[in-house]
Amino acid sequence: MRIALGVEYDGTGFTGWQTQPAGTGVQDALERAIAAIAGHPVRLACAGRTDTGVHALAQVAHFDTTAKRPQNAWVRGVNAHLPPAVAVLWSHPVEDDFHARFSARARSYEYRLINRPVRPALQLHRAGWHPLPLDLRAMREAAALLQGEHDFSSFRSSECQARSPIKTLARASVEVDRGIVVFGFEANAFLHHMVRNIVGCLVAVGAGRRPVAWMREVLEARDRTRAAPTFAPQGLYLTRIDYDARFGLPEFGRTPFNSRP
Amino acid sequence: MRIALGVEYDGTGFTGWQTQPAGTGVQDALERAIAAIAGHPVRLACAGRTDTGVHALAQVAHFDTTAKRPQNAWVRGVNAHLPPAVAVLWSHPVEDDFHARFSARARSYEYRLINRPVRPALQLHRAGWHPLPLDLRAMREAAALLQGEHDFSSFRSSECQARSPIKTLARASVEVDRGIVVFGFEANAFLHHMVRNIVGCLVAVGAGRRPVAWMREVLEARDRTRAAPTFAPQGLYLTRIDYDARFGLPEFGRTPFNSRP
Repeated sequence: MRIALGVEYDGTGFTGWQTQPAGTGVQDALERAIAAIAGHPVRLACAGRTDTGVHALAQVAHFDTTAKRPQNAWVRGVNAHLPPAVAVLWSHPVEDDFHARFSARARSYEYRLINRPVRPALQLHRAGWHPLPLDLRAMREAAALLQGEHDFSSFRSSECQARSPIKTLARASVEVDRGIVVFGFEANAFLHHMVRNIVGCLVAVGAGRRPVAWMREVLEARDRTRAAPTFAPQGLYLTRIDYDARFGLPEFGRTPFNSRP
Repeated sequence: MRIALGVEYDGTGFTGWQTQPAGTGVQDALERAIAAIAGHPVRLACAGRTDTGVHALAQVAHFDTTAKRPQNAWVRGVNAHLPPAVAVLWSHPVEDDFHARFSARARSYEYRLINRPVRPALQLHRAGWHPLPLDLRAMREAAALLQGEHDFSSFRSSECQARSPIKTLARASVEVDRGIVVFGFEANAFLHHMVRNIVGCLVAVGAGRRPVAWMREVLEARDRTRAAPTFAPQGLYLTRIDYDARFGLPEFGRTPFNSRP
């Protein structure tokens, strides 16, 4: 039987999603907790492999099990075995043709940036920081240039394992939420470091170090050395994974900060 | 010379604001950092002494110094000596009749509550938690009963040192911000544990364990044993201190999450 899970985590204390020999990945913590309930080892596949320090409001993962348990055991039971920084939000039985990674039709990320002279204290591990004023309009114009289907090689890390650098960026938005600059991105899939590399370029434009049109030059160059440095991980949140409605996955925990009640 | 400071901190790793023999208070960290810039020991007075685990977006404190430094030294210089969980947002020279505590005309607090079946992971040290659905309208009606000048003895901890239990609660609001229940309070001053005790009672009403009118009974009883248990500290934020405009303190860092840019 295949089970899908919605998962929230604080990435601060983990070496990213992926399993590590030392057991320091979010995946390791989850696999240990699920195994304790299932009574056998499990292997998780996830929708978006986040890096060290990156958070998830709505990661989706799946595993196969021979154990018959009430659905709630995969939430409350697993949560009782997880460290406090990880929580399963929901579980849902799925057909064998469901795959958390390959069935995902779209991923959404948010990057939260504190824009003020003083470094963040309360939001230390929760947001990036830029001390000088940023031009929101310029950043919005530059973000708009990236929307659509493009070869995003300029924003791709050298370690990226994706088969193709061509992705469709359905949304690249720049908003302000209670004084925090929130960059929002939705795409069919993302390359490794793509969001953090794009944010680095948007900040370069917002700070006036580069003109808006430079964003198009970087995109068209398809050359990583042309883009700005990768921005800090702690402001990045995986906020939503979209699947075909036929899988019937719950909405809860799939929108930023869980729109309940 | 008297200097006022705006201060933000994550209360998680501190034993509250107040100085402790072991040096574990926020005040201790700040006094050490200021002394390093001033070149002599300093003593801070603050507007609102927060408890262990309680956060501040906009604490205000003052100290006296004989050192002549550019204003920026009290921000950037002090920040360089502070632990990452504390940051000075601004400094401002004030007349000797200014006192961070006694000149304050109003204090504002926010209590942030995650209301969903699953415990918070990402917001672990940033919000309280209640697993069952809460009736927002009932909580709003109960909160409205507390507004105005009252004897708040029922919401006062036994350790409270305030001279009078009579305070004027100018605002007691209940809103939802991206799925988080946000309780907002503004008063001329607060008793020890007053906000957390009020939140405990509002949650009892919201969960349907008590009717709305019970809030008035608790208030009128002036008896701590009648109220609900003190709610958890980690959802509480000191968000604003108001002073007479003649002191000329900056607005920056005195509204929730710093409304810049």
